[in-house]
Amino acid sequence: MKPYDILVTNGVVVTLDSKDRIIQNGAVAISGDRIADIGPAAGFPDGEALKIIDASGGIIMPGLVNTHTHAAMTCFRGLADDLPLMTWLHDYIFPAEANLDYQKVHAGALLACAEMILSGTTCFADMYLFEDAVAQAAKIAGMRAVVGEVLYDFPSPCYGPIEQGFVYTENLIQKWRDDPLVTVAVEPHSPYLCAPELLMRAARLSESHNVPLIIHVAETRSENTTMHERYGKSPVGHLADIGILSPRLLACHCVTVTEPDMELLAANQVKVSHNPESNMKLASGIAPVPRLMKAGVCVGLGTDGCTSNNNLDMFSEMDTAAKLHKVNCMDPTVMDAPAVLKMATIDAARALGLSAVTGSLEIGKKADVIVVDTRKPHLTPMYNVYSHLVYAAGGHDVAASIIGGQLVMENRRLLTLDVEKIMADVCQIARDIKTAGK
Amino acid sequence: MKPYDILVTNGVVVTLDSKDRIIQNGAVAISGDRIADIGPAAGFPDGEALKIIDASGGIIMPGLVNTHTHAAMTCFRGLADDLPLMTWLHDYIFPAEANLDYQKVHAGALLACAEMILSGTTCFADMYLFEDAVAQAAKIAGMRAVVGEVLYDFPSPCYGPIEQGFVYTENLIQKWRDDPLVTVAVEPHSPYLCAPELLMRAARLSESHNVPLIIHVAETRSENTTMHERYGKSPVGHLADIGILSPRLLACHCVTVTEPDMELLAANQVKVSHNPESNMKLASGIAPVPRLMKAGVCVGLGTDGCTSNNNLDMFSEMDTAAKLHKVNCMDPTVMDAPAVLKMATIDAARALGLSAVTGSLEIGKKADVIVVDTRKPHLTPMYNVYSHLVYAAGGHDVAASIIGGQLVMENRRLLTLDVEKIMADVCQIARDIKTAGK
Repeated sequence: MKPYDILVTNGVVVTLDSKDRIIQNGAVAISGDRIADIGPAAGFPDGEALKIIDASGGIIMPGLVNTHTHAAMTCFRGLADDLPLMTWLHDYIFPAEANLDYQKVHAGALLACAEMILSGTTCFADMYLFEDAVAQAAKIAGMRAVVGEVLYDFPSPCYGPIEQGFVYTENLIQKWRDDPLVTVAVEPHSPYLCAPELLMRAARLSESHNVPLIIHVAETRSENTTMHERYGKSPVGHLADIGILSPRLLACHCVTVTEPDMELLAANQVKVSHNPESNMKLASGIAPVPRLMKAGVCVGLGTDGCTSNNNLDMFSEMDTAAKLHKVNCMDPTVMDAPAVLKMATIDAARALGLSAVTGSLEIGKKADVIVVDTRKPHLTPMYNVYSHLVYAAGGHDVAASIIGGQLVMENRRLLTLDVEKIMADVCQIARDIKTAGK
Repeated sequence: MKPYDILVTNGVVVTLDSKDRIIQNGAVAISGDRIADIGPAAGFPDGEALKIIDASGGIIMPGLVNTHTHAAMTCFRGLADDLPLMTWLHDYIFPAEANLDYQKVHAGALLACAEMILSGTTCFADMYLFEDAVAQAAKIAGMRAVVGEVLYDFPSPCYGPIEQGFVYTENLIQKWRDDPLVTVAVEPHSPYLCAPELLMRAARLSESHNVPLIIHVAETRSENTTMHERYGKSPVGHLADIGILSPRLLACHCVTVTEPDMELLAANQVKVSHNPESNMKLASGIAPVPRLMKAGVCVGLGTDGCTSNNNLDMFSEMDTAAKLHKVNCMDPTVMDAPAVLKMATIDAARALGLSAVTGSLEIGKKADVIVVDTRKPHLTPMYNVYSHLVYAAGGHDVAASIIGGQLVMENRRLLTLDVEKIMADVCQIARDIKTAGK
């Protein structure tokens, strides 16, 4: 009997483990859904595995972890850009979302999964409507996902009144409790669209089930103004006041946070999702990520949805994150390539409470592994793998992807999804939206 | 006899002509090196051309124009990153450049051409050492190029003393005078590395041959300080004082320009090359591009060299440019997708004095045409071509490229270059650099 199911070999293994080990000509051996061994390629004869993935001198690394998506918004990619925020939201996004249903969210989420797998992401954290459809899509795609139904004070096109939103969320938690890929989170939208009672109840639910609590916080100046008017506090200050800051909380955006806010986040071990491209495109501002990190806050990277980005490519997001903070701080040494790569892997996994499961290549962890093909002009020559991954590579350079021991993409071919059908389904949704808009 | 040599058909034709014409199911017909006709695909039966390029519903558009490169710096891609500017320059870049020769520059430039063609660029403006090697590389690749030997006060590894730099430049101008692809420019490095006499002589040479004058200007705060100390003027103010501002001048970077500087640039019809990713990565600052454009200055986009980017992908550069200025101005409506696309095509061609030749799809212009394949998850669905090209696409989505009527890339295969040999040559150069550094 072969000792391993899959052997990914003949590449530079970038482990992102606690010692930042890099193995120049290395291999990763997989048994079942887990990493069984890591070491020099010479130590693993090819005959020892049922399936060999030859990295051909490229890079073998952990799959990327996207800490903030609205996957099904792929349906609206490019529907509206370059507009004032309120025009964009009220004239385009909200009307489009009012017509969503389970099938549309499922189709959009499948498309997102296809795009994410093809660009090296193996795990994503999603907030949206009809989130059971997203969980189902992730399951079909074979992707690791944290999903949560968005909760707010007004009725939802999915569950109706907020009371039913909590029922929906509890049902989701029960339904996916033992799934090897899908985790459910409790996801109130934001402090400005959720009353304190809603937020506190959401926090209690997250605590009682020990699942993540995910929320948008301090995304825009206008949110900040609203919160000061309503509560005399910053968004983070308000969340502290009502007692919901905790290590389970993932605060997405954190653009307008102040020094006292950052101290609160650090003291309560709150995690932050950083979404630079979305914050830039919507002109929301620049999150003070180097200062957050200095304060000891764990920051994971995310793309946000496709209406404000407009893709889900985490390689592009890494590149932008590194460059944006250098110029914002006027210091080329901040946000160096290894730090940014961690923000898209192990730190992102930590932000989702999944660092024991994914985010680095370590024996015993789930086998979430990607291969980057470096035999291309734009990745030649190679002096430094971290530099290449952050500053030169793109999602299209990912040649293979394994999630939880399942090979989901090989030689750019998706093995779990019928990509032609998925694209056709979303194109039909787009045609309906265009017709309705006329 | 077939009336056309090449017919690019069955795509959305984005002309970027003065009327911004878009033809939904269109075609571009090419005879010899020029665009012979443009119109609905139905008007061009397939039998009417020797070669058919089927865009398969994708986008047919002008090739991208990169207004600022140091092509051969591909040899140093990722050699040094995340360092203070002076450490980076003096400990890594200058020592590596001291060992350059014609062969190395030729190899590096060929690699750059391969990368540029594969990412949709059909024309680039280069400044470096041994620039005849870059012209030769462009010629082999079949790329349109503006090349110029860098001139400065100290001796050059290429030509020796500055007197010989002018001889080298004049020889280049004579040698390439009638070339259909290569134009030679006069290229003093910058106001801080070139004495006024050098700059004035360079300007006279550019004037007498009616060729572009290309220079780095106002890239960093430290340059600005130096110029004020030396001349009591800003970099642009100094160039105005010595009388070298003109419509032939392309000023690269212009990060630290003031309102009076912008008025000088506009009044003298000076063109600007904007290099956002390089300026971000080196923490140089953010060029006030929306204000430059408002002042009436023609701005073309550029990547700069691979040591400060670290790729030559103009799609990525467009995305970053659009987002950077939105967040910098805190206004999502600035730098909209059509404006940014023009900055990478027709405005870039104008900046190089080549707008009669390239940068848009118009009958009679040289046939510099690319096809973007949109049948991919990250480009699905498609509501708006401009949005997709700027915010969602990447260089890897370019399926075919035609330059001056020559098909140089089809289905991602380079037709003019031996890419395996080119990559092997540059890898050898990198090995030598690594060995020397030990």
